[in-house]
Amino acid sequence: MHFREKLARSWDLNGSLLCVGLDPDPSRLPPSVSGDSKPIFAFNRAIIDATAGHVCAYKPQFAYYAAAAAEDELAMTIDYIHEQHPSVLVILDAKRGDIGSTARMYAAEAFDRYGADAVTVNPYMGGDTLEPFLERADRGVIVLCRTSNPGAAEFQQLHVDGVPLYLRVAEHAAEKWNANGNVMLVVGATAPDELSSVRTRCPSIPLLVPGVGAQGGDLERVVTSGADSEQKGLVINSSRGIIYASGGTDFAEAAGTAARDLNEAINRHRAP
Amino acid sequence: MHFREKLARSWDLNGSLLCVGLDPDPSRLPPSVSGDSKPIFAFNRAIIDATAGHVCAYKPQFAYYAAAAAEDELAMTIDYIHEQHPSVLVILDAKRGDIGSTARMYAAEAFDRYGADAVTVNPYMGGDTLEPFLERADRGVIVLCRTSNPGAAEFQQLHVDGVPLYLRVAEHAAEKWNANGNVMLVVGATAPDELSSVRTRCPSIPLLVPGVGAQGGDLERVVTSGADSEQKGLVINSSRGIIYASGGTDFAEAAGTAARDLNEAINRHRAP
Repeated sequence: MHFREKLARSWDLNGSLLCVGLDPDPSRLPPSVSGDSKPIFAFNRAIIDATAGHVCAYKPQFAYYAAAAAEDELAMTIDYIHEQHPSVLVILDAKRGDIGSTARMYAAEAFDRYGADAVTVNPYMGGDTLEPFLERADRGVIVLCRTSNPGAAEFQQLHVDGVPLYLRVAEHAAEKWNANGNVMLVVGATAPDELSSVRTRCPSIPLLVPGVGAQGGDLERVVTSGADSEQKGLVINSSRGIIYASGGTDFAEAAGTAARDLNEAINRHRAP
Repeated sequence: MHFREKLARSWDLNGSLLCVGLDPDPSRLPPSVSGDSKPIFAFNRAIIDATAGHVCAYKPQFAYYAAAAAEDELAMTIDYIHEQHPSVLVILDAKRGDIGSTARMYAAEAFDRYGADAVTVNPYMGGDTLEPFLERADRGVIVLCRTSNPGAAEFQQLHVDGVPLYLRVAEHAAEKWNANGNVMLVVGATAPDELSSVRTRCPSIPLLVPGVGAQGGDLERVVTSGADSEQKGLVINSSRGIIYASGGTDFAEAAGTAARDLNEAINRHRAP
């Protein structure tokens, strides 16, 4: 199935644009799972069970698994999502970017080893380094454009020929890299004006939007300026605000409630 | 020991500026190791044994291990280098780049899990995302500046306020990120003019130079325009030209010869 079909199916499943970030910090796992032999997977499974009715996607952040030497639990988590919720997307947030021969290995890792539906990539090295990802029309390639961190403007906002760099990246994504229609862009909720500019420049490219919740982005502005003409076109990620909604034994229930509330809040801002 | 001391020690060990890239493609391993239970480690160990007298550093490329689910063999390889050749640097080529809380996990992965002496990072997200790496004064932070791939110019060469982006990155590296003196820059051998510009702008920052050998960079120009005032300041990487010098049972011997020859060629171009 083409990535865009998968994405459309994921939005329709629960009428949701919400993505839950699975960033399990071993030092923050609740006591009820930290004794498990696979504590990260146990944590993720409970979060997934509690939130799957409110999401379109899950986004495991590679770094948390890599730091914990828990590649097996990353694979178990992705397999579990595919088995239990086959219409929910899995986005591997790994921000890959390397020369072609190496990028081919990263594409094999994300799509074949882990079976992710999409992966985040970094554009700094140029479009040729994205090719091994782009050629996989059944998988999504989510290019960093305007990120949510405090220092994002340092380079992304520099003007090149009168256009900020992040918009130049967006233009390349729309005009050069999207032959297979499988490109998305990362634009942080903490940069609503830039989100608006990207949506104007790229009316039909879906956007992955991190930075609501713990990072402080304004949800209403994200939805009103980021949605496409069908009031879709967004995958809005929250990680810490959902998975750490409670640190106690009720962590999964609290995550479910937080996901439900955030999904409802997003939908309230979508035009009818 | 501070990273710059480690780097100086590694250059002096064999009088070498050569780094061998450990990019073991499972489909290209020679038959004599491919039956081993840890074929990647067996290959790397043989390459290391044959080349260690001619190098200052080894650079395992993370993607090859990730695609093969061989994190254990990556760890074994790094441990083996540290044990057998404690003055040789290990550079983990992973091109990390993510928001601060995530970057902290990547720093833990590279420096604590794998024990790398240095890691490559991507500057696109801004200097705040490099902080968790930069604060580790005993480790090197090697920032992508002007890369060696054919499409590198697409963004890196765009002019911002009259300066190409890669030079702006170099300026930030020299002026903002190098408080601990542990920053290096990646500049490809395939871009000798840009290498010269970076060296002029940043006289004392060590450069990691990929792209000689298989990628076609001009060695003489790399050395004459990239060396610092002490005729050091360079870590010149070759991967495929050395590790695949022969695909037969003599692969290690051939790698040793190729490393010796390349090191001698580099040294011929260093001013006396």
